[in-house]
Amino acid sequence: MAYELYYWPGIQGRGEFVRLALEEAGAEYIDVARGPKSKGLGISSLMDILEDENVERPPFAPPFLKDGDVIVGQTAAILFYLGPKIDLAPKNEADRLWTHQIQLTITDLVAEAHDTHHPISVELYYEDQKKEALRRAKDFRENRMPKFLNWFERILARNPSGDRHLVGRSLTYVDLSLFQVVEGLTYAFPHTMTRLIPDMPRVAALHDAVAERPRIKTYLASKRHLPRNDEGIFRRYPELDD
Amino acid sequence: MAYELYYWPGIQGRGEFVRLALEEAGAEYIDVARGPKSKGLGISSLMDILEDENVERPPFAPPFLKDGDVIVGQTAAILFYLGPKIDLAPKNEADRLWTHQIQLTITDLVAEAHDTHHPISVELYYEDQKKEALRRAKDFRENRMPKFLNWFERILARNPSGDRHLVGRSLTYVDLSLFQVVEGLTYAFPHTMTRLIPDMPRVAALHDAVAERPRIKTYLASKRHLPRNDEGIFRRYPELDD
Repeated sequence: MAYELYYWPGIQGRGEFVRLALEEAGAEYIDVARGPKSKGLGISSLMDILEDENVERPPFAPPFLKDGDVIVGQTAAILFYLGPKIDLAPKNEADRLWTHQIQLTITDLVAEAHDTHHPISVELYYEDQKKEALRRAKDFRENRMPKFLNWFERILARNPSGDRHLVGRSLTYVDLSLFQVVEGLTYAFPHTMTRLIPDMPRVAALHDAVAERPRIKTYLASKRHLPRNDEGIFRRYPELDD
Repeated sequence: MAYELYYWPGIQGRGEFVRLALEEAGAEYIDVARGPKSKGLGISSLMDILEDENVERPPFAPPFLKDGDVIVGQTAAILFYLGPKIDLAPKNEADRLWTHQIQLTITDLVAEAHDTHHPISVELYYEDQKKEALRRAKDFRENRMPKFLNWFERILARNPSGDRHLVGRSLTYVDLSLFQVVEGLTYAFPHTMTRLIPDMPRVAALHDAVAERPRIKTYLASKRHLPRNDEGIFRRYPELDD
């Protein structure tokens, strides 16, 4: 049975981390909220699960994954669940936990990247929190981005199986997620990334290697891959990238 | 061998979620950074692990747990690892994943609670971001706190094994974490909590039941339990609780 991914249509957002894993694995999946209402899909299917009082374990927010009777929310938990099933997680438990820890750190980075343009409230427009965004983005560029990216560079360098992957000697879902982080940061903060990336050769090489994987390449060129826009996590507001 | 917990001394912070689990289980543990340097403990032991180039899998930030050779970072991952070992996690995998999802949602809430007083940067004092904090805290009180707390109330109500625990019919680590969230929010936002709690009888009852558990009661009255202060995640700044 196909996996069902539920995420807001129209943005890559957090859903993209799950999509990249499903695409790399060649797994069958339905991107439910982007499908037509006539086929029982669309945004209302997503809202139904969030609001249905009979759902015993309702997710707090999208994305969530439905696999038969199982519903899993929280991006990092979805990947932790999915990884072993689609052969994108390490075999042993200690390595799986380490992979998950890295993914949770990516989760933190993603939340902070989002808050550069929404430091006050998701209920308000960017324009209504732009002054605060300027300050928060400065801190993100100067302190947080280097701290996160240096950590990824460091753990790549220390991987005893080689610096081509974050964990072990083969691709895992967290390599795909780091690719998406580099994509997003490069889109949102091109100047800052131009400055930082030369010191992070391993992160850059991993990003480039993922982009060249046949299934990822096909996916990125397909209609299944949503184009970037300024409504998601990573937004290009030039004033935030000085 | 005793577990070693590494966290900033002087604040409950994220370390407290791990302490509560260890205390409830009666597990042997060392709160490393709070110990004396003469015994090889103290903050420098924590910094050593963060900075030692020989650590193959360095945590991104405290808290982290050392269990023999294993080092685990990220609060939710620590509890996911620890829970089954100290009998504070459900037996089957699906239930464990659900417990973890709830913990990850608590992680999100904790980050947002922190950002009410530090909406711009952890590098700056509260006073230097107070104006922004006033706006962010308003959104947290009006939108985010009710959204999170209503979700906890809802999943308690829907637990088929009864509404006394978040998962199954026995205590798990996530019940202890929700206790700490209620403690923290009540300290930081007493007026808001007075307004919200009447609509969350199950959350309130779970909090009260945890406070009465013998080991938790003993712990809370002991010196191992750090008193609240305004340097951690939950701070009482009356102007942020209107």
